Amino acid sequence: MLNKLTAMATLAGLLLAAGSAFADKTYRLRLAETWPPNYPIFGEATKSLKKMVETMSNGRLKITIDAKNKHKAPLGIFDMVKAGQYDIGHSASYYWKGKDPNTLFFTSMPFGMTAPEQYAWFYYGGGMELMAKVYARHGLLSFPGGNTSNQMGGWFQKEIKSLDDLQGLKMRIPGFAGEVLAKLGAKPTNIPAGELYTALERRTIDALEWVGPSLDLRMGFHKIAPYYYTGWHEPATELQFLVNKKKWDSLPADLQEVLRVAMRTAAYDTYAQSYHASAVNWDTIKSDYPNIKIKTFPKAVLDAMRRANDELLAERAAADPLAKEIIDSQAAYMAKARAWTAISDQAYLNSLGE
Amino acid sequence: MLNKLTAMATLAGLLLAAGSAFADKTYRLRLAETWPPNYPIFGEATKSLKKMVETMSNGRLKITIDAKNKHKAPLGIFDMVKAGQYDIGHSASYYWKGKDPNTLFFTSMPFGMTAPEQYAWFYYGGGMELMAKVYARHGLLSFPGGNTSNQMGGWFQKEIKSLDDLQGLKMRIPGFAGEVLAKLGAKPTNIPAGELYTALERRTIDALEWVGPSLDLRMGFHKIAPYYYTGWHEPATELQFLVNKKKWDSLPADLQEVLRVAMRTAAYDTYAQSYHASAVNWDTIKSDYPNIKIKTFPKAVLDAMRRANDELLAERAAADPLAKEIIDSQAAYMAKARAWTAISDQAYLNSLGE
Repeated sequence: MLNKLTAMATLAGLLLAAGSAFADKTYRLRLAETWPPNYPIFGEATKSLKKMVETMSNGRLKITIDAKNKHKAPLGIFDMVKAGQYDIGHSASYYWKGKDPNTLFFTSMPFGMTAPEQYAWFYYGGGMELMAKVYARHGLLSFPGGNTSNQMGGWFQKEIKSLDDLQGLKMRIPGFAGEVLAKLGAKPTNIPAGELYTALERRTIDALEWVGPSLDLRMGFHKIAPYYYTGWHEPATELQFLVNKKKWDSLPADLQEVLRVAMRTAAYDTYAQSYHASAVNWDTIKSDYPNIKIKTFPKAVLDAMRRANDELLAERAAADPLAKEIIDSQAAYMAKARAWTAISDQAYLNSLGE
Repeated sequence: MLNKLTAMATLAGLLLAAGSAFADKTYRLRLAETWPPNYPIFGEATKSLKKMVETMSNGRLKITIDAKNKHKAPLGIFDMVKAGQYDIGHSASYYWKGKDPNTLFFTSMPFGMTAPEQYAWFYYGGGMELMAKVYARHGLLSFPGGNTSNQMGGWFQKEIKSLDDLQGLKMRIPGFAGEVLAKLGAKPTNIPAGELYTALERRTIDALEWVGPSLDLRMGFHKIAPYYYTGWHEPATELQFLVNKKKWDSLPADLQEVLRVAMRTAAYDTYAQSYHASAVNWDTIKSDYPNIKIKTFPKAVLDAMRRANDELLAERAAADPLAKEIIDSQAAYMAKARAWTAISDQAYLNSLGE
């Protein structure tokens, strides 16, 4: 009897040991995204993240995704993740510049880095460390969340031939780029996505920028505006995964790494997918609407935009040491990276001619 | 007594169930890489892969890495992984063109796609499916393994002013690009890495290409050749992870996904790291050796190279239906992707002027 009890106790002990080592507790993360449900590309990034995380963890880490229709606060992601109402957000860092001005710098800056330059800065040039410093103040971790590639300068009803044509120009262009244009006499406005087509068609606005062919095609702007300008204001728009730090700290190390690597891959994949979608959609636009004219702003206009941009950055640097640290880091890094771009991709592309 | 036996049997049953579900068997993968031990960037990709995989799997999937000094067969990776002597290889697909001519197309092609264009093609434009078709014949899986970014056209002792200057030019340039130059009268040679510096210094060769500033700096070529030509022959050299399919199939689904996602991130990261290293190293070269001249081949030379390249591709397409399928896919995709590049990154970079 003693032997049998001992055997039972041994079995029970083994079972408990197995239980504690392999309990495989399930962790659940709630993710809120800025986008409407099933939004192309951006919405696929979060679905891809969920799938990678759940497969890699064999179901131990689960993610539920709430789109805009569910949480009703597309620009409330920062607050909701900070408060722990959600554990992860998928959005864009520059949306939070009203809450912390230094969040501005981690999406894309006018006349700033291209996507490969910016990824090099984030991961090997000190960018991640600076972003961490900004978000640590809010109990948040921030990671790149997918690049749209170079954004187009927008759809215009009239050609911009000189700075005079910017005077009073009503353009939907939000954020820092809007501030730049305002300094030059334009009237930047923000209008909800659903009303943009009508506003441009009825000339409530003279111009607008959205993203690029990847997401512009479905908006239909090419049907009502003849000029499509090349970009200057967001050369490499990077979305963002925002994570509540307390929640992150509560995950075991293996699941933290699963989440980190899955976010990293989802972000890079979004860049490749955006590039693909813009290639395919631009092909469609120019085949179906061959009269669309690609334009680049005249040098005098670009020079004035750049001066205005530099002045606005100088104001921010003077007002805040951390802003200065970030601005200086980006400028110094871009100088080196651009010199490489100039003799590599740019020289290659230009050497092929037409 | 019956109750106690039943209880024991139940306990034993539970333990077995726990054992089968949570056994957490450790899987071990042996990786062979083409590179010498601790090779910069390329060697960091495999170390990063190992670390991601082991952390994400909580030690259930382990990788041992053998560099060239261990396995002694830097260009035997394909054979060793095919034979199951190793489970994974880190190398480059175009090294295997002697074993299967269609492996040529998955690294980088002369006058081909840039890195963002090529990633878009691989992951969203049908590239992965074509690569899988080629490697399935060998019982292998192939994945992107990291991009060097645009490779420089090489270091030259004399300026190339016309096609005449290519006649008899002795240049270290291996592979398909070597075939292109041979058609134009040059004498391509291959020389082991360790002898390249002396060969160029003693004028045994007139020119050589290696990678770009990221890996050229340590070779010291800038000390002995004054002309650094921009690239045409490998605009987006992608390394390769090669996996033995039987070994892959023996892994549980969660560990397959851990490996897939870790390889994908390691590859993208290598692109960002290469971009970074070239930016930093080019800055060093041009600061320390301000007399280095960046040159682009004259248009007549580039046009002739492109014609020779097109002829060689046409020969391959005529000889093999799968080669034709791949060549056609790349050409059609590049036409669309390049039209997007032209109005996005290229237009942006060119609009900034000097």
